[in-house]
Amino acid sequence: MKESLFRPRGIAIAGASRDPAKVGHQVLHNLLAVGYPGQIALVHPQASSILGVQAYPDLAAVPISVEMLILALPADTTPTMVEAIQRRRRERGDLKVVVALAGGFAETRTEEGERLQEMLADGCRTAGVRLLGPNCVGVIDHRNRLDTSFLSVMHRRPSGISVLSQSGSMAAWMAMEWGARPTPVGLNKFISLGNMADMSLPELVGDLSDDPTTRAIGIYLEGMSDVQPFLDAARRASRRKPVVVMKAGRTETGAQAALQHTGAPPGSDELYEQAFPANGLLRVRRVDDFVSTLTTFDRLPLPLGSRLAVLSNSGGAGVCTLDVLADQGVSLARFSPASLTMMRSVLPHFAVVGNPDGYVDMTGGVGPRQVAQAVATALRDPGVDAVFHLFMPTNFNDTEAMAEELLRLLPGLKRNSLEKPLFLVLLGGQSTAQARQLLEEHGMMTYSSPEQAAISFAAMARYAASRQLVRHV
Amino acid sequence: MKESLFRPRGIAIAGASRDPAKVGHQVLHNLLAVGYPGQIALVHPQASSILGVQAYPDLAAVPISVEMLILALPADTTPTMVEAIQRRRRERGDLKVVVALAGGFAETRTEEGERLQEMLADGCRTAGVRLLGPNCVGVIDHRNRLDTSFLSVMHRRPSGISVLSQSGSMAAWMAMEWGARPTPVGLNKFISLGNMADMSLPELVGDLSDDPTTRAIGIYLEGMSDVQPFLDAARRASRRKPVVVMKAGRTETGAQAALQHTGAPPGSDELYEQAFPANGLLRVRRVDDFVSTLTTFDRLPLPLGSRLAVLSNSGGAGVCTLDVLADQGVSLARFSPASLTMMRSVLPHFAVVGNPDGYVDMTGGVGPRQVAQAVATALRDPGVDAVFHLFMPTNFNDTEAMAEELLRLLPGLKRNSLEKPLFLVLLGGQSTAQARQLLEEHGMMTYSSPEQAAISFAAMARYAASRQLVRHV
Repeated sequence: MKESLFRPRGIAIAGASRDPAKVGHQVLHNLLAVGYPGQIALVHPQASSILGVQAYPDLAAVPISVEMLILALPADTTPTMVEAIQRRRRERGDLKVVVALAGGFAETRTEEGERLQEMLADGCRTAGVRLLGPNCVGVIDHRNRLDTSFLSVMHRRPSGISVLSQSGSMAAWMAMEWGARPTPVGLNKFISLGNMADMSLPELVGDLSDDPTTRAIGIYLEGMSDVQPFLDAARRASRRKPVVVMKAGRTETGAQAALQHTGAPPGSDELYEQAFPANGLLRVRRVDDFVSTLTTFDRLPLPLGSRLAVLSNSGGAGVCTLDVLADQGVSLARFSPASLTMMRSVLPHFAVVGNPDGYVDMTGGVGPRQVAQAVATALRDPGVDAVFHLFMPTNFNDTEAMAEELLRLLPGLKRNSLEKPLFLVLLGGQSTAQARQLLEEHGMMTYSSPEQAAISFAAMARYAASRQLVRHV
Repeated sequence: MKESLFRPRGIAIAGASRDPAKVGHQVLHNLLAVGYPGQIALVHPQASSILGVQAYPDLAAVPISVEMLILALPADTTPTMVEAIQRRRRERGDLKVVVALAGGFAETRTEEGERLQEMLADGCRTAGVRLLGPNCVGVIDHRNRLDTSFLSVMHRRPSGISVLSQSGSMAAWMAMEWGARPTPVGLNKFISLGNMADMSLPELVGDLSDDPTTRAIGIYLEGMSDVQPFLDAARRASRRKPVVVMKAGRTETGAQAALQHTGAPPGSDELYEQAFPANGLLRVRRVDDFVSTLTTFDRLPLPLGSRLAVLSNSGGAGVCTLDVLADQGVSLARFSPASLTMMRSVLPHFAVVGNPDGYVDMTGGVGPRQVAQAVATALRDPGVDAVFHLFMPTNFNDTEAMAEELLRLLPGLKRNSLEKPLFLVLLGGQSTAQARQLLEEHGMMTYSSPEQAAISFAAMARYAASRQLVRHV
């Protein structure tokens, strides 16, 4: 783990600005807003202070200890900054990490851009300073109250999810989706990869793998020049925690745009399709699936196997969900005779129990208490590894009442079956918002579509299976 | 068109109840709530009135004209009710349609259930009365202020979308998703198919095809015994308006559950996969796609071709969207030299314009006015049939400001390019809610994910192409 990247003692910002529209202002603003606990100093030719933070005319003059330097200056200042970095190392020896935000380097695929990037990377290397970027939005570590980014959308309560992203705006999009969940989810660590002139994807995957507060790793990729070191690092990481990857630029036009965007070669998607699962990586294709799969890994216990029970109070939604689960290669559980008897006695006589195996159409006429009892029975069944509970508000059953019955029964359930994940799929748009919030505040995980739940469970089942393999080897 | 189904003169409800938890109460409640303009009477052995509506001991005693009878009684009352229906026809001759809500008929696949259904269907046929159901949630026509259902979730402002569904709860789910849109969407007509003992899917598809207020038809299916008549009706309908179908029970387990649910044979999905497109049907696989595709057809003009321009202020989201569009087989436009020049002069110098063809990465640094100008340019380009405008709020550009700039420019645009659909994809969860509402209140269509927009556009392009074929034949 890079202490100086996630918990630097002292930060200097070169390029801080008084103008709220400028990146150099927003970075300082974010750092103050998250309550960074160390000292901050600015490097600014004229200003004496911005937002109450003391400024100095050059880096050499900064009196505090500076472990991290944030560069919020255009690419053409690189020669001057490299000199300043090397001088600081010589004179003070405190600088350890440079975070270079600006674009205009190798991603432009121009000679000038490549020359400046090489100069920056070489300058840092010879000075013994590590470099994140350039062309990145920085690093966020909510646990350590660090935010060097100019994003304004990250929820701050840290979860166990850490994300590496080759695109800053994708990270912003994902952060907004996480923030819009029934209980907003903040990331644990977020690292914007940028051009990876020094700190590389494999190295940072290794860092997150070692990080005890990271329970699940998410990676957004568009391309890279050397795939094998990444696959090696990901394989090692996935033995310790789930690694979910969204690789864009899958198609010809997507790849062409990706090359313009990050400057990194997108590579053949067929290769990735084989290499990802072979190296333990869990691939998703949509941002909503990325968000819900990682949140699932963070919140729910891993199932011991892949035998899933599905209970629905909507026949139609049940059919659709079984379709989606079959698409994902998920196999259903087989209820024990005791569970079948119990559910038949609890549910209305027109409910369809165990046909197909592992599936219960509780029907729309079912009440809150019956639903909760059926779910409890499924969770207790030794032949069941995980439960899908599909629910739609009806005139006979509102979602809040169902949620409360579930919570009444779940403390006991939790004691008996801590090991089993429960997928609460609450259908019906905004009408279930309150119940979802209530359930999530109790640490549960809810979904608004069968697809999100199915993709999340399939990833979990694949991961659990791979872990078992590792255990048995 | 069935006047007596959608605009009955006089309705009687057999099985009305004082108990709000009962279907027989909810039906009456809905009918009153939508402001049904005709007369209502109840058939009830004891009550003299419920919710202020007069009750009579039997159907023969109802003095008002009864064109529609709603049966909210259990299946075992069938013999009595058939007698009452036949007597009413003999004595008064006014009854034209029976809507039978209860289950317990052929869908149970028991001898008794099948016998009762045959008795009901035969009884109606010999009396010259049409039958909807049994085992359905009824019919809704918001334009005619009719609602015989016991659903409580349908938004009442009618759109041009009409839906036929083999599952009542699926209709409820869809209605809730429509109601949760930035501007809530109500259906035009909704018909719950039930067991189709008399009124059949092909016949009702024909009715909606003839209905001048229905702009787009949506169908949720789980199975049917005779596919060809449906395909014939759908093919004819799709020459007049788009027909979007969601067929569930696609997989082995899904089909098994579907058979238990509706009692209708789900059939081979390979057959449907071939037959749907061959007969002009547009298939979707997810409820969210069903809802957004139909809403798109209702709101946006049909494109004259399939050449799509994509503009994004997020490089990553742009790449993802191009991937999804390629998955859907969508081909990109080629900008005219004039458009390229114009966009390059308007956008920041680091924007990537026309690489790949038809795509513009406006970059995150772009401001509201620049965005609106670029979108306007793309819409004006004669080589562009439709435009995707992907937008993510940034520190340099908030969504409301962008939406207002767009509205400022769009009145002129509308005059010049009425024929071109604009797909506003606003990413970032709840943070774009206000802007989406603003844009939708002006009649536009917004999307919260590239996938929904891509699937909707692909359906539109396929439909437009099939219409061209028909025109040229």
